[in-house]
Amino acid sequence: MTTSIDALKEKGRRLRILSLKATTEAGSGHPSSCLSAADLTSVIFFREMQFDPKDPHNPANDRFVLSKGHAAPLLWAAYAECGILTEKDVMTLRRLDSNIEGHPTPRMPWVDVATGSLGQGLSAGLGNAFAAHVDGIPFNTYVLLGDGECAEGSVWEAAEIASYYKASNLFAIVDVNGLGQSQRTMDQFNVERFADKFRAFGWYALTVDGHNYTDIVNAFDTFRRDGGTQPRALIAKTFKGKGVSMLENKDGWHGKAVPKQDLPKALAELETPLGPNEFVPKPRTGYSIPHFDGPLNITISRKPGDMAATREAYGDALVKVGEKDPRVVALDGDTKNSTFSEKFLKAYPQRFFEMFIAEQNMVGAATGLAARGKVPFVSTFAAFLTRAFDQIRMAGVSQSNVKFCGSHVGVSIGEDGPSQMGLEDMAMFRTIPNAVIFYPSDAVSMEYAVKEAAQYKGICYIRSSRPKTAVLYSNDEQFPIGGSKVLRKSQNDRVTVIGAGITLHEALKAASQLEKEGIAIRVIDAYCVKPIDAKGILAAAKETNGRIVVVEDHSEEGGLGDAVLEAVGNQAKVVELGVHEIPRSGPPEALIEKYGISSNHIVAAVKSF
Amino acid sequence: MTTSIDALKEKGRRLRILSLKATTEAGSGHPSSCLSAADLTSVIFFREMQFDPKDPHNPANDRFVLSKGHAAPLLWAAYAECGILTEKDVMTLRRLDSNIEGHPTPRMPWVDVATGSLGQGLSAGLGNAFAAHVDGIPFNTYVLLGDGECAEGSVWEAAEIASYYKASNLFAIVDVNGLGQSQRTMDQFNVERFADKFRAFGWYALTVDGHNYTDIVNAFDTFRRDGGTQPRALIAKTFKGKGVSMLENKDGWHGKAVPKQDLPKALAELETPLGPNEFVPKPRTGYSIPHFDGPLNITISRKPGDMAATREAYGDALVKVGEKDPRVVALDGDTKNSTFSEKFLKAYPQRFFEMFIAEQNMVGAATGLAARGKVPFVSTFAAFLTRAFDQIRMAGVSQSNVKFCGSHVGVSIGEDGPSQMGLEDMAMFRTIPNAVIFYPSDAVSMEYAVKEAAQYKGICYIRSSRPKTAVLYSNDEQFPIGGSKVLRKSQNDRVTVIGAGITLHEALKAASQLEKEGIAIRVIDAYCVKPIDAKGILAAAKETNGRIVVVEDHSEEGGLGDAVLEAVGNQAKVVELGVHEIPRSGPPEALIEKYGISSNHIVAAVKSF
Repeated sequence: MTTSIDALKEKGRRLRILSLKATTEAGSGHPSSCLSAADLTSVIFFREMQFDPKDPHNPANDRFVLSKGHAAPLLWAAYAECGILTEKDVMTLRRLDSNIEGHPTPRMPWVDVATGSLGQGLSAGLGNAFAAHVDGIPFNTYVLLGDGECAEGSVWEAAEIASYYKASNLFAIVDVNGLGQSQRTMDQFNVERFADKFRAFGWYALTVDGHNYTDIVNAFDTFRRDGGTQPRALIAKTFKGKGVSMLENKDGWHGKAVPKQDLPKALAELETPLGPNEFVPKPRTGYSIPHFDGPLNITISRKPGDMAATREAYGDALVKVGEKDPRVVALDGDTKNSTFSEKFLKAYPQRFFEMFIAEQNMVGAATGLAARGKVPFVSTFAAFLTRAFDQIRMAGVSQSNVKFCGSHVGVSIGEDGPSQMGLEDMAMFRTIPNAVIFYPSDAVSMEYAVKEAAQYKGICYIRSSRPKTAVLYSNDEQFPIGGSKVLRKSQNDRVTVIGAGITLHEALKAASQLEKEGIAIRVIDAYCVKPIDAKGILAAAKETNGRIVVVEDHSEEGGLGDAVLEAVGNQAKVVELGVHEIPRSGPPEALIEKYGISSNHIVAAVKSF
Repeated sequence: MTTSIDALKEKGRRLRILSLKATTEAGSGHPSSCLSAADLTSVIFFREMQFDPKDPHNPANDRFVLSKGHAAPLLWAAYAECGILTEKDVMTLRRLDSNIEGHPTPRMPWVDVATGSLGQGLSAGLGNAFAAHVDGIPFNTYVLLGDGECAEGSVWEAAEIASYYKASNLFAIVDVNGLGQSQRTMDQFNVERFADKFRAFGWYALTVDGHNYTDIVNAFDTFRRDGGTQPRALIAKTFKGKGVSMLENKDGWHGKAVPKQDLPKALAELETPLGPNEFVPKPRTGYSIPHFDGPLNITISRKPGDMAATREAYGDALVKVGEKDPRVVALDGDTKNSTFSEKFLKAYPQRFFEMFIAEQNMVGAATGLAARGKVPFVSTFAAFLTRAFDQIRMAGVSQSNVKFCGSHVGVSIGEDGPSQMGLEDMAMFRTIPNAVIFYPSDAVSMEYAVKEAAQYKGICYIRSSRPKTAVLYSNDEQFPIGGSKVLRKSQNDRVTVIGAGITLHEALKAASQLEKEGIAIRVIDAYCVKPIDAKGILAAAKETNGRIVVVEDHSEEGGLGDAVLEAVGNQAKVVELGVHEIPRSGPPEALIEKYGISSNHIVAAVKSF
């Protein structure tokens, strides 16, 4: 039974009313941005989408992503209109004690990915579309975008890749109200231009009057009939503030709630019912997704002393966890032969997503996949993960279960030079609450890190290195989150040297060198940078006269050095070795020497105490 | 006198030869990516561009940006072929002691912006185009892109904004060789599809055989004749490795130099001269750009106790520096009414660039403007600067003279919630070598910071806050880089409390509260976070029993707290107060209480000693 046009109009009216009331009550919010999209949202929620309002976890629910996250009140109103929330809930908008937030976050169970940083929703939607495909479930994903946010390049990354992968289960609905935050948008009401852009990117695009229910309904019917294998774009001409004359199509109302004294006047214009208030959900049932309850055990078969690049071990381990846990998927940004995610592509091609040179979309799609229960591993050069910091930040806000591997870290990559060197990635991921950062120094600990990452609930970042290094650990060594390893220890250790990755090997070299001079040092492998093993490091510091040298192939700001400083406070004197200038091209060994992180520098730092 | 087709072919041959020789000598590099673009580069350098090879600083030189930065050897070869470099120089490619790097950096004077992180060159080119327009100089900017990198959304941000601003002096030349790093690209050889995308984004686009000199030359003539006010896109079908049969159009050769033993065979295919080796530069003379040698003095007129938001003071100061220094320009991402850059728009509309909701391009364009001698101030919400971290990182590699203002920092923005809160921005900018970070706590210090930023040679980041706070300083107070201010001091100070921005005011509140209880504290305003006033902080710590509380409206990782820790080492016990969980929507005062950075928490921390 399809919802009638009149019933849809009535829902649209009710969405407008509640959006206005809630923002006025909160004293802040974006009602005009809600009003432009109310009719579109009504058709999507109450006619197009098949979902069970009683069950947010039904794997076959159609999905809705509010990319224009500032229209959150509209989303909350839609949930109220299908019984997921009450009107009373929605009226707690923006309050400290309410999960009905100013921009949607997964504190509210129906919200998969936090939005509010514009241009990210279509990627999340694409991730959902990928999940539907992988799991063989015919659910659709509807993404509501603003027009201003289509200036964000990430929208076009998602658009290109969606059409490349023939994501015909993905809908982009663009609310073209012609007004940005501080002025009119570039394209204003030129819906044909929007449509042409989507068509050039391979979408099936239609334009409609975004306030004409018949047109909107017909458009979705046309998509069904003629959309083929293309993703679908509905470009809707709308008016910001539609339905309330004091707001309608007026600049200067972005992000402003209607003042309490003006609300009655605004509501008066919406008081006439437009149809019956009815909605019958049409859940889709009978589908399931892969589950995995663990434990996740993998077999590691390395020999100490063998030379192996941790980046290659990443690929090996990814295949192993993928074999055990069917939810694991991998994404890469045209670097799979460098990151070795290509090993996963070979083993499980249906679970590998080549995301091309478009890192923002890659991360956004991963959050969409994670929302659908996948365990996504995203890989590229560490330096290029900075391209997606906003998406990583929002994945953090979403407490998304995405894993990252950044390869080619540090100056030790050599001749390619600074554009390719990851020197900021640990600082970036350290700012993400509850994220775990692994920086394995050998192939064994790398494989273990991948396993831990797959099991951890939340964001995990693993640094991988380009050069081959010696296997240090035995295959059954454990590397729990928050731990560290002591690799050199004696009763006479004068200084504790902490390294990770390449610099751990430099530290071992330094230890051998110093040993010849009769100086013993403690060497610690800080394979887990966040959370750092404060206890273990403090204990070592106590036994080495409160002297620590910490060395990282990373900026000296914000990475391992700062983590150690936070851990020891004033309980130890810490000498930090890290990269503090813009590096250049050169051979790897020469660069670690020049930028102060080689064994020679460690030796000098030890002696400086 | 126009270079003949045969001479252009000969230059193309020579470009191929030197690209191969240099990468083989270096043992690494991307010769196949150079060979596909050699013919295009020849026409651009030796026929289209007007420049003086003797003078990289001639303001009217046409500009070239190698967006596909991995083809650096091709660029170096082009410079050799017009006498800017020698062949011997180019043969030092990738060596530690050479400025001829693996990817272009401004260590080589003709390179304005470092490239190598794909998809960023068109934005830099747009910035150049803006500068030409602002200064009234008819130079053109040519940006050579790869096809794979056109998956980057940043390319489409630049494309949209270039056509919006009718940048008919901007050329995008796309080298469509169909091969990415790890596999074929999405569009492969479909040059018409590329052209359609550029056309949909408002460009005048032509497709050519990228190895047919007559076609390429004719295309540029057509641009001149018919391009009108549109930016121009030349979509060229090419073959990776063109000219050498072992490489031509073969997958698997990305980023691989021809081994020494195979070089003679490769070069043999290129040994026949194709025309005369001649090139006559056609410099454009008689133009100048605005200069400013300082000093930059502004008049600040505030009254202590007045309430003012530092974000608004930013706008005021921007106008003042703009009045004195004609090179100052401003860019904003549709937040100008929030960041108050709109004040600069009102005062100097020809020097203000609305960059819409596309932060990556905004930052990239700023680096292009800075390369042309402008002093760009980029503003948006601090949270959204994370969208452009890769561009900021590359601006750092370029040691670009771009200034940033991130507004709406911290949880203190209130009800909009975490998507809008800048909590990672100081961590981000601290990783940029030589960057300066200001975090002014009042309107006077904000105005001063803007002035300092305008004078500083390099990246400067200023945090601005949303709420109004009391003016603390007198108008003639100085705020040098690397300094701090002591706002409460006595002989009996028990603890030093360091704050900045909002938390500085919380610290003052705490001081008053503690005073009532007979506890005196030192209060320091860390208005300069990088470089931090280590000396001043250490001195204060010594006088307060080695006890410090540092409090920031930012993640507790990577920001002011870590900077203080680095400064004091083990000379003080530091209690760090910062945001360590995902925040939520709520009133500002409630949020700073909930997230541990209010005066109450400062008082508790002081008492905990």
